[in-house]
Amino acid sequence: MVAMENFKQFLVLLVSALSVGFVCIVFVLRWVFHFKEGLAWDGGLAEFNWHPLLIVIGFIFLQGIAIIVYRLPWTWRCSKLMMKFIHAGLNILAFILAVVSLVAVFDFHNAANIPNMYSLHSWVGLAAVILYALQIVLGLVVYLVPITPGFVRAALMPVHVYGGLFIFSSVIATALMGITEKLIFGLKDPKYKDSPPEAVFVNVLGLLLSVFGGLILWIATRPHWKRPAESQLRLAHNDDLAAASEAGANGGGAAVTMTTGAGGDQESNGEPRRRNGKGEESAAGGRINI
Amino acid sequence: MVAMENFKQFLVLLVSALSVGFVCIVFVLRWVFHFKEGLAWDGGLAEFNWHPLLIVIGFIFLQGIAIIVYRLPWTWRCSKLMMKFIHAGLNILAFILAVVSLVAVFDFHNAANIPNMYSLHSWVGLAAVILYALQIVLGLVVYLVPITPGFVRAALMPVHVYGGLFIFSSVIATALMGITEKLIFGLKDPKYKDSPPEAVFVNVLGLLLSVFGGLILWIATRPHWKRPAESQLRLAHNDDLAAASEAGANGGGAAVTMTTGAGGDQESNGEPRRRNGKGEESAAGGRINI
Repeated sequence: MVAMENFKQFLVLLVSALSVGFVCIVFVLRWVFHFKEGLAWDGGLAEFNWHPLLIVIGFIFLQGIAIIVYRLPWTWRCSKLMMKFIHAGLNILAFILAVVSLVAVFDFHNAANIPNMYSLHSWVGLAAVILYALQIVLGLVVYLVPITPGFVRAALMPVHVYGGLFIFSSVIATALMGITEKLIFGLKDPKYKDSPPEAVFVNVLGLLLSVFGGLILWIATRPHWKRPAESQLRLAHNDDLAAASEAGANGGGAAVTMTTGAGGDQESNGEPRRRNGKGEESAAGGRINI
Repeated sequence: MVAMENFKQFLVLLVSALSVGFVCIVFVLRWVFHFKEGLAWDGGLAEFNWHPLLIVIGFIFLQGIAIIVYRLPWTWRCSKLMMKFIHAGLNILAFILAVVSLVAVFDFHNAANIPNMYSLHSWVGLAAVILYALQIVLGLVVYLVPITPGFVRAALMPVHVYGGLFIFSSVIATALMGITEKLIFGLKDPKYKDSPPEAVFVNVLGLLLSVFGGLILWIATRPHWKRPAESQLRLAHNDDLAAASEAGANGGGAAVTMTTGAGGDQESNGEPRRRNGKGEESAAGGRINI
């Protein structure tokens, strides 16, 4: 098994991200059920409430998990293909929830004779949904259809990674605009500017969503927390087997450090990746840009 | 002179970012002077208008330029220290403009008896200003005070870089919330939901700000567009001199490719950086995360 650098630090950040994400979901549930009209599918305000709930659960929390799923070291024993299915599956689920949440808003607007798509929130949000659909389709075609050549996969990987993080950030920015709109329109007496409990509570939700986004982006941009290249994983795995059968000692670490990584990871160019502790760590400190 | 990979691509993106940023400033000027009350310092709406103007010019445009200033290849002949002063100077100027823009809003609120700091826009915005102040002070102490040891600089560099990009993104998200608030409160008859020309115009400004942010973040996160390590620059420079005096041919490129980079860049760990074309390019494609 390939050891992860700074595993404890990773674990602290992962648990923080999951906790903050979980608290966000609790907050939006309390907003909907305690402060607002609860949930229904009746064209009224209770139908609108599906919108923030499904956005937070799907478009923010699930997309966030989908972004960092390759980085969980206990998944490094799973095949790359299986991890791709999990990554794609989580994103598709998030997309479906986002679309349902849009239907809820359009339904509500149409029933209440409120125009659709007039606000910056709706413009940036729809752009994010369209870009997300493109990202998913492109991701499936390029990284899951087996005939796409390796150089195309490699050439598009920076766009795929950057696109994913940009869309994720845009969704959080859109959620902050949505909270702003909803608190202005939804609070009448007292108003938003009078800071009633709902205003303060939902402002805190907005801050928590930003913190969740910040944690996911930090985890996703640490170069030394990447899933190792397939060749390294295979070497480490062979090494584990050898160590187990021969009851030998000094195992995976050295093999991983020394591999030339010329193997089969199709998104890799076969460049060796150093996982020997201090070296890569200070490289990340000194030279890597996020 | 060290050659930059994909110089043309860099130039296209840089010119796009500068153009979009410039158009954002033109848009906010037209918003303030054509649709709104213009500028004044009288406690009224014309004083408020300094807020969006100075935020777009300072906190967004200047901060964006400050982020990518090390990446301009024609600055690679300048000393690292001079570039640090320019980076710090632009950020300090952006900070001063942000503070003045806050004073304009507080003045306006106090004169009109509108509460301060009740909205999510104000919470995230103030958090961004405070984090920006911390980032600037920490940056000055760690990277400009000569006594800070190299390992501290290297250890904090990922935090400095990530912090900068996170603050920049938060500022743009805050601007989108600010636009949302201002169009809801500022448009009475017709309202925001009736999509008068001002609403559409300022929505477009919001999209342009997002595009500007996306371009700056893309430029800032391409690993092969980084300023080369000082040792590489010195070697290339020596090579240039040698080539000039001896009228020799095959010069800088090879020297840069082969340098072991063990020299004086205090934020570097001396790891060699490959600038020999295809190799690093496909490495960026295959393995680098942003």
